[in-house]
Amino acid sequence: MVELIIKKRNGFELTKEEFSSIIDGFVSGEIPDYQVSAFLMAVYYEGMTSDETANLTDIMMRSGELIDLSEIEGVKVDKHSTGGVGDKTTLILAPLVAAAGVPVAKMSGRGLGHTGGTLDKMEAIKGLSVDMTREEFIDNVNRIKIAVCGQNANLVPADKKLYALRDVTGTVDNISLIASSIMSKKLACGADAIVIDIKVGHGAFMKTVEDAEELAEMMIGIGSKMGRNVIAVITSMSEPLGFTIGNALEVKEAIDTLKGNGPDDLTELCLELGSHMLVLGEVAKTQTEAVVILKKLIDSGAAFNKFKEFVKAQGGDTNLIDQPDLLPDTKFSEIYKSKSEGYISELNALDIGLASVKLGAGRETKTSVIDYGAGIVLQKKIGDYVKKDEDLAILYSNNFANFTKAIKFMDSAYTISEEKPSHKPLIIKTITR
Amino acid sequence: MVELIIKKRNGFELTKEEFSSIIDGFVSGEIPDYQVSAFLMAVYYEGMTSDETANLTDIMMRSGELIDLSEIEGVKVDKHSTGGVGDKTTLILAPLVAAAGVPVAKMSGRGLGHTGGTLDKMEAIKGLSVDMTREEFIDNVNRIKIAVCGQNANLVPADKKLYALRDVTGTVDNISLIASSIMSKKLACGADAIVIDIKVGHGAFMKTVEDAEELAEMMIGIGSKMGRNVIAVITSMSEPLGFTIGNALEVKEAIDTLKGNGPDDLTELCLELGSHMLVLGEVAKTQTEAVVILKKLIDSGAAFNKFKEFVKAQGGDTNLIDQPDLLPDTKFSEIYKSKSEGYISELNALDIGLASVKLGAGRETKTSVIDYGAGIVLQKKIGDYVKKDEDLAILYSNNFANFTKAIKFMDSAYTISEEKPSHKPLIIKTITR
Repeated sequence: MVELIIKKRNGFELTKEEFSSIIDGFVSGEIPDYQVSAFLMAVYYEGMTSDETANLTDIMMRSGELIDLSEIEGVKVDKHSTGGVGDKTTLILAPLVAAAGVPVAKMSGRGLGHTGGTLDKMEAIKGLSVDMTREEFIDNVNRIKIAVCGQNANLVPADKKLYALRDVTGTVDNISLIASSIMSKKLACGADAIVIDIKVGHGAFMKTVEDAEELAEMMIGIGSKMGRNVIAVITSMSEPLGFTIGNALEVKEAIDTLKGNGPDDLTELCLELGSHMLVLGEVAKTQTEAVVILKKLIDSGAAFNKFKEFVKAQGGDTNLIDQPDLLPDTKFSEIYKSKSEGYISELNALDIGLASVKLGAGRETKTSVIDYGAGIVLQKKIGDYVKKDEDLAILYSNNFANFTKAIKFMDSAYTISEEKPSHKPLIIKTITR
Repeated sequence: MVELIIKKRNGFELTKEEFSSIIDGFVSGEIPDYQVSAFLMAVYYEGMTSDETANLTDIMMRSGELIDLSEIEGVKVDKHSTGGVGDKTTLILAPLVAAAGVPVAKMSGRGLGHTGGTLDKMEAIKGLSVDMTREEFIDNVNRIKIAVCGQNANLVPADKKLYALRDVTGTVDNISLIASSIMSKKLACGADAIVIDIKVGHGAFMKTVEDAEELAEMMIGIGSKMGRNVIAVITSMSEPLGFTIGNALEVKEAIDTLKGNGPDDLTELCLELGSHMLVLGEVAKTQTEAVVILKKLIDSGAAFNKFKEFVKAQGGDTNLIDQPDLLPDTKFSEIYKSKSEGYISELNALDIGLASVKLGAGRETKTSVIDYGAGIVLQKKIGDYVKKDEDLAILYSNNFANFTKAIKFMDSAYTISEEKPSHKPLIIKTITR
């Protein structure tokens, strides 16, 4: 192992066999953590070639159970987001593309820190369960084209162990390691094709468009080497997506969007990602055709109905979907007002995400309990003109003491300027093979 | 700790308090190995500033017992070699400078791998012990100006633990880490001033003169920040020093040298290092004056008598010093002959060192038992002209099977060329503050 560390450190390319011996030894415990962390730091500095990244991904993918989706008819297209604030696109996209006939067999994760998780949002719907057997999962997809469940505990254990080590050794933010971590999980879940939403900006993993492009190219390269079509869409996370942040609040906004009444940015992103999914899923020939199909499914109510069908199939109370006001609420709310007059020039997504965690909407640690009703509803977004003391947002929580903690982050989230900020597009770039 | 790893990784300078928390936490076990090894790899890439190196050295030095030599009169001058093959200079220098009046209170180490250790060489003298109490050690120095003992087990435990981790994580060969490792030990041993012999070439830690200069500057810088005078002499280790490699064989050559009959290169190096020690020890004003003093001590027999006095004081049999032929011998010897005719253009010190280990003169692992009589006596050195089948060296071992193993390394040690190699100086450069 020392020789492999030094080989990487000295800038040489490792073979697949060498990566295999490192990962297998790490997972089995034969290679100690302290050697792997030194190796990871060398990788941080040296990076990995596209071959190395694909090999590492393949080895990690095979470290646990591989989900076999071959019993599901059609091209299975998965969607992945690198994590945003107020990002409820899965709640919308899953029923939307399922309604179009693309099978959605989705395994999702929970939220930690400032970004939420799809499973938590879904569990804001009373009765809905994300625990199901493999058979139930596959039956649901074959029957109604959609199922969303929690990730198998034995999914890519190598990545789990490696990520935990990276997290405590300052080796998280290397693009080749991020790419292989994401791709190993997506590929283990059995997707035939993947649309990846790479967020850029405050509160996102990628801080610059250049980094996002590098990550996109790497993931497309891994997919290409492993025979899977990958499309990457680079999107802005300069402010939260939509107006709501918090589990039940986001479900409500998802329902509005499925009915055609959602916020512009969220609707635009769903049509962009969804249209790529329809093309990859061979349900539409071009992106334009796909957008037309998706809009029709929204206007006809088919997308909303598919969402209800999906909620019902997983045990959720569909009355809550018809009457979203019955979704979890909070005892307390507080209006957050502007401290000055001018244009909102910054609305830091990271700060808003952290404020929502403080309100109880997210997890500070893995064992935190979520307050499903808690969160934030933005009244204004970047570019809006506000007067002093005008409402900027409404905060919700079941614990009154949380407001004081959250307001600190709200205060730092906003920048009010005299000059109107220039409009920045949400969809920055789409990268295909 | 993650923040400190990332701070270093991102190229920022750490404060003394930050280094202190890392080292203290590592020694106490609060900071796990895997974080320290990632940190060390970041240091490997980023290096350390002179302040950082001095701070790390100071913190490591204070991690264990500090040897107090204040009860010894005079300026205590220590000598350190980065490790060479056939390097018996301590056996000569210690009595030589002690005879000149410089107090020699030396703590030495044992050999491991291809370089030998002073303690092992001394123990080739029957009866001689390197175990003594602090009082005996100080009494001997005050009485006869010389004592050599083993290092205290509690000497710089932080360096011991850190070096063990570096050794298995590919983070040994960083010059700032090497400098602080060496200096923390030398300073903990209580020296007022230090002469450092930095070897360059095959079989040496430093492969280029540039690296050796960088190491020299760093060690001088650390000394300067901690109020100790340091002189670094960069010397060539392109071939073994002197003609003998192996414990008893080296004692014999040291005795010859103390009597004025030693090999030119070894004598030259001893006069160079010894003269700096005399100047630092305030026994001579200039290096030239110091060389005159040292030569006189050799010619008068005073240096040799001091060696005998020293051996007697530590329980050794002085008959062996008067009759070196009685020193440990071997049952077997074998002549190693030249395979071709020409000039010896290379005589790889690393290979010769490894051959001597195979003969039994050194340790392959920490628990190997040393064959004190085993080793090599070179008959020819670089620049000598040899005929085919002419004797190049004599190998000695008490285990006949060892010859086969050693000969493989002997074969790769020699390069015979038609052209006479240009003469390369032994003393490459002397660097002072």
